[in-house]
Amino acid sequence: MAALGAQAKVFTEKHRLTYYECDRTGRATLTTLINIAILGSQDQSDDLGLTTAFVQQHGVGWVVTQYAIEITRMPRLDEVVTIAVRGSAYNPYFAFREFWIRDDAGNDLAYITSIWVTMSQTTRRIVKIDPALVAPYNSEVTKRIPRLPRPISFETTPTTISKPYQVRFFDIDPNRHVNNAHYFDWLLDTLPAEFLLQHNLKHVDVRYENEVQYGHVVMAEVNILRATSDAEVTTSHRIRLGDEKCCEVSIQWQTLAAPIK
Amino acid sequence: MAALGAQAKVFTEKHRLTYYECDRTGRATLTTLINIAILGSQDQSDDLGLTTAFVQQHGVGWVVTQYAIEITRMPRLDEVVTIAVRGSAYNPYFAFREFWIRDDAGNDLAYITSIWVTMSQTTRRIVKIDPALVAPYNSEVTKRIPRLPRPISFETTPTTISKPYQVRFFDIDPNRHVNNAHYFDWLLDTLPAEFLLQHNLKHVDVRYENEVQYGHVVMAEVNILRATSDAEVTTSHRIRLGDEKCCEVSIQWQTLAAPIK
Repeated sequence: MAALGAQAKVFTEKHRLTYYECDRTGRATLTTLINIAILGSQDQSDDLGLTTAFVQQHGVGWVVTQYAIEITRMPRLDEVVTIAVRGSAYNPYFAFREFWIRDDAGNDLAYITSIWVTMSQTTRRIVKIDPALVAPYNSEVTKRIPRLPRPISFETTPTTISKPYQVRFFDIDPNRHVNNAHYFDWLLDTLPAEFLLQHNLKHVDVRYENEVQYGHVVMAEVNILRATSDAEVTTSHRIRLGDEKCCEVSIQWQTLAAPIK
Repeated sequence: MAALGAQAKVFTEKHRLTYYECDRTGRATLTTLINIAILGSQDQSDDLGLTTAFVQQHGVGWVVTQYAIEITRMPRLDEVVTIAVRGSAYNPYFAFREFWIRDDAGNDLAYITSIWVTMSQTTRRIVKIDPALVAPYNSEVTKRIPRLPRPISFETTPTTISKPYQVRFFDIDPNRHVNNAHYFDWLLDTLPAEFLLQHNLKHVDVRYENEVQYGHVVMAEVNILRATSDAEVTTSHRIRLGDEKCCEVSIQWQTLAAPIK
């Protein structure tokens, strides 16, 4: 049996990482990684006639509910990467989409899996996926969509670090929703600079629960969990709006011998 | 007599505006406009061997002190624009750089003039411009650098709107400084969404006074001044850190007949 989604159309495009898409160490930010992955999927969708307008004519919008992001090496400043994406498979309620970010030599820098649902524009409830919205991807019809890892359930502790973030006008993108890749800027900014300079992202599990809106002041919280070894550490994150959980994230980091200067 | 800087080398490159560089109306953000202009100038500098490392070897860094930004039409989502830049002229202390953002047909969408100084890495003081850092641009040696308009002097009033912004880790770019194009996200986010949806940027005068640092909580303030006509309105902005002025900006806006939906 072929691997799930093996027959789905793969769309690729190149992207150069600009200085304003990278952090002070020259590594692309996690927000950028997701931004360019989604750019690839939007370009594939447009290419196949599955434009935002077309999807909206069906009374729905696509909403991502989970990401699992495996990072071998974060792209760097001025690097030209290839983004590859496919709408791999779907069942009546969930669609499974995969992304690869590759270097010039074709090596995987990052591999991202994701789960998507269609949400009614009127009721804001999840509705069955209309096959017309996925067939052009050559998405495989399946019963079983892969289950992505659930992030660690966040628990407030005496050492939890938290910071408030107000959702800005420019967090809303042309799709009229808060660009939820921006959550990563909030989530990671909550960590001390010393931590960010001495760790590389290895794996990120994300689960979105509730949308945030323009003007909301959300609280980003993080626990730095006990390191499993000298070479690795895990962090557990949550974004909440009052008592409402907006998203939960866990991250595995590679610990560097010394901070990046 | 030829216009100032007429013999300076012009560098051009193309750039496509992605969804994450545009606001909810599909217009590129002011931050994006400056980001891509600076991208063009960095690429020209690298192309001529005037890399950041080369500049640092001379013990200095370039710092922008003023922008005057004239916008005919903001680039839009998915539009491919041409960025053109030249290091037009310099005198012992100030360098004058110009940028053009053009559409596919060669029409100017934006024209940006700017004043730059070199700052000592050790003393953080302005130092004389080393000709080795500008000669490769074919910059014209001049006594008189054009004076850019000074923004309106900001005055706090009972109707001043202000919002605090904490400088984030990801506001620092690979040049190790807070990307001061991010100031525009703070400055404009302070305006009501209704205002931003019913106005187009026409002209922006910016004067930077003091650098902000990671972790600082700055206050962005705005006065919406009396409209000079039904078709135009001016806003006056300031970013301050406590009592210290970080930058002052005035903006002329074109008022639209109705908000963009």
